[in-house]
Amino acid sequence: MGVELLYPMRTYLIVSSDGERTNVMAADWVVPLSHEPFMVGVVISPKRLTYEFIEKTGEFVVAVPTLDLKMKVWKAGTVSGRDEDKSTLFKFVPSAKVGVPSIEECVANLECRVVEKKEYGDHVFIAAEVLHSTYADFAFDGGARIDRIRFLAHTWGRAATFDTRYY
Amino acid sequence: MGVELLYPMRTYLIVSSDGERTNVMAADWVVPLSHEPFMVGVVISPKRLTYEFIEKTGEFVVAVPTLDLKMKVWKAGTVSGRDEDKSTLFKFVPSAKVGVPSIEECVANLECRVVEKKEYGDHVFIAAEVLHSTYADFAFDGGARIDRIRFLAHTWGRAATFDTRYY
Repeated sequence: MGVELLYPMRTYLIVSSDGERTNVMAADWVVPLSHEPFMVGVVISPKRLTYEFIEKTGEFVVAVPTLDLKMKVWKAGTVSGRDEDKSTLFKFVPSAKVGVPSIEECVANLECRVVEKKEYGDHVFIAAEVLHSTYADFAFDGGARIDRIRFLAHTWGRAATFDTRYY
Repeated sequence: MGVELLYPMRTYLIVSSDGERTNVMAADWVVPLSHEPFMVGVVISPKRLTYEFIEKTGEFVVAVPTLDLKMKVWKAGTVSGRDEDKSTLFKFVPSAKVGVPSIEECVANLECRVVEKKEYGDHVFIAAEVLHSTYADFAFDGGARIDRIRFLAHTWGRAATFDTRYY
């Protein structure tokens, strides 16, 4: 038994670009690193097209999908951008501070610039500063509003959301 | 708006020791780093007693609490071990590969040895190898079983768990 002991975990989307093509992958291994400055860490396999794109531009967007997007997120997490153009899955809008676009359907988009990369075992940890973020006020009013929004999580393969009964 | 855009997140417990005292803190900022070897990252404020203890021993345990422990987890996350002995909150059992104990009430305990530390903004990222783990088979049978176990999460201040309706 390994990383599944930390599951269920949230699932996010990582948007990246090589300047021409835009790619989206699903990623659970995302963690806040600092409040001030606002920084996040993402952990990605170096085999991923997303990794290759981030290497090129030093930028990416962490987008926050909701449960209603689960089939698209599933596809983003199981099909490689090398085999299929995943840019048609979502509607992109320009970001404010990075060249990589944000996802319109998502309740938040964090525009990130890479600060440092470090290999650990079979993955690479990427520390990044969040230069700008956009979000739906409705979803983050006094904290994440699980009574209003079905935030997406998964249980090592299956989609889940949060139960408001224990709010 | 900052890190709350990534919430709700799971809440874990970090057990640490200075060789004499055992301390427990609640931590949301925990992330898998690698499958092989199994590694995890934890992000902790250098002001925490837990950080001081981990500096001393190079070891810690990531324990996985369930919703029924939420009041104890809340206390572990809001009261400093400098002000109160939090070792009475949980029942400890010896770990197999580290000197820091595991928590009996938790559904999993990951015994960790620090590999590297790196400061990012107001927190320190600690990369660690998981030397050994113990867990309840019932909770992790073919992935995290949210149909059986109420895994703890929180929504920027309040407790939540996962909804099996969307399993």
